[in-house]
Amino acid sequence: MPQTIAFTKGHGTGNDFVIVSDPDGELELTDDQVAILCDRRFGIGGDGILRVVRSAAIADGADAVAEHAEWFMDYRNADGSVAEMCGNGIRVFARYLDQAGWAEVGDEPLRIGTRAGVKALTRDERGIEVDLGRFAIDDADVLVRARGLDVARPGVGVDVGNPHVVVALSSLDELEGVDLGAIPILEPAPAAGANVEFVVPADPLVHAGVGSITMRVFERGVGETLSCGTGVAAAALAVRHWAGAGAPDRWIVTVPGGELGVRVTPDGHVLLSGPAALVYTGEITLA
Amino acid sequence: MPQTIAFTKGHGTGNDFVIVSDPDGELELTDDQVAILCDRRFGIGGDGILRVVRSAAIADGADAVAEHAEWFMDYRNADGSVAEMCGNGIRVFARYLDQAGWAEVGDEPLRIGTRAGVKALTRDERGIEVDLGRFAIDDADVLVRARGLDVARPGVGVDVGNPHVVVALSSLDELEGVDLGAIPILEPAPAAGANVEFVVPADPLVHAGVGSITMRVFERGVGETLSCGTGVAAAALAVRHWAGAGAPDRWIVTVPGGELGVRVTPDGHVLLSGPAALVYTGEITLA
Repeated sequence: MPQTIAFTKGHGTGNDFVIVSDPDGELELTDDQVAILCDRRFGIGGDGILRVVRSAAIADGADAVAEHAEWFMDYRNADGSVAEMCGNGIRVFARYLDQAGWAEVGDEPLRIGTRAGVKALTRDERGIEVDLGRFAIDDADVLVRARGLDVARPGVGVDVGNPHVVVALSSLDELEGVDLGAIPILEPAPAAGANVEFVVPADPLVHAGVGSITMRVFERGVGETLSCGTGVAAAALAVRHWAGAGAPDRWIVTVPGGELGVRVTPDGHVLLSGPAALVYTGEITLA
Repeated sequence: MPQTIAFTKGHGTGNDFVIVSDPDGELELTDDQVAILCDRRFGIGGDGILRVVRSAAIADGADAVAEHAEWFMDYRNADGSVAEMCGNGIRVFARYLDQAGWAEVGDEPLRIGTRAGVKALTRDERGIEVDLGRFAIDDADVLVRARGLDVARPGVGVDVGNPHVVVALSSLDELEGVDLGAIPILEPAPAAGANVEFVVPADPLVHAGVGSITMRVFERGVGETLSCGTGVAAAALAVRHWAGAGAPDRWIVTVPGGELGVRVTPDGHVLLSGPAALVYTGEITLA
């Protein structure tokens, strides 16, 4: 039976999402429906879908309920697959809650449930900052092959709620030369796949106590995107790891879609900061 | 001053458009505004914009008024530049008028003004058929260079209300190997530019009196698109021209976004036929 869905389109540094409001958890979208909604020509278009649902109204939400997070971000990639977290998406999600009057993003942390646990967000000078929680760096060798790179490069695994592999390149020219129209090949291939970030450290790396890098990203199930929030955090963490003792705790990461901030706290949390915009509202009827 | 614009998103074989209703000609969009509306991540996204305006309310519409075409398709490319005609766009435009109750697409021709003259549209088994009018084939040599093709190839110029250059390739593999991420280079370069179609004739070319070809297209001011209606007509006309005496008057053209029909009448008109879909409605506020 045809159903009409109201939605909002939003983005964080060009990483864009179809936001559907479903507070009581009544909306079930098949993978095919998500794929058509995210199709940029035959549907609405987006890197993924953010379903806005009360934690109490979704099976995944039990932990969020226990941690007093009223809202849960049900995030799915453009191919319909379920994703743990999205660092740009959760800022857009928070902006949506704020604009709808359902929650407030301010100095007090707003807690939002995700499949990677409850995240706390506050307002800051870039827009919204999200605490991505603890991270883990896996030094085991991963080789990354990408079209446009002459040889396989070593990558480092970073987990920030979802898995990433970060590869350092030597120049912006080399970064530009990588063809992300093809999926980068990882050896060994992680069981659940991974997003892959290609990064170029600035020269000098650190200015006024802040490190700077430029990156491009290939997202699992999506392809190249203009930005990937958790990927930005992973990239900063990898370069900070390579830089060793004395590396700064604050980073600026430039992606094709804009600029984001990354911060590491003394208790080992990583925080991501950047803009979040709601662009338009619409209604679509699904067959 | 911020203005809120209501729009409809539609497509014909994946060639997609933002449709804005402006019957009384009150809406002036700058090139930058068109570009942001057509941006797939920071705006709505589309290959171009169709402004629905009464012929009497637009300076370009005098001829249309004289020919009793109440409505005028003000078509602009994604970069804001003005375009003469769009064979997929005008079907979507007609579907919009029909759905809005402002005109009817049926057995009687619906006449719509464009910058390439007044076009007549009727309903048919594929969806909507548009009479693109007379065409002209220019046999003067044009050389086309494209990334992924080893040598420059000869092209033929076809004018169907807007200018095209059609290049024949020998196989679907060769067609797939053309990299349309870069603009094809034409020698000599036409003053107003041209859309470029790369076509592969079917083998056998004709089946049951209908010719078949497969094509990809690079549109001026846009890049590669899933489909270009006038380009589809131009491609069929070029292959029909090359086939010489006895070539069929009916063609099926497969593009990445679907399938269209082309028909040449005894009085030298070319008609294009295909689907037209309205996908969703929305509202966006421009700064």
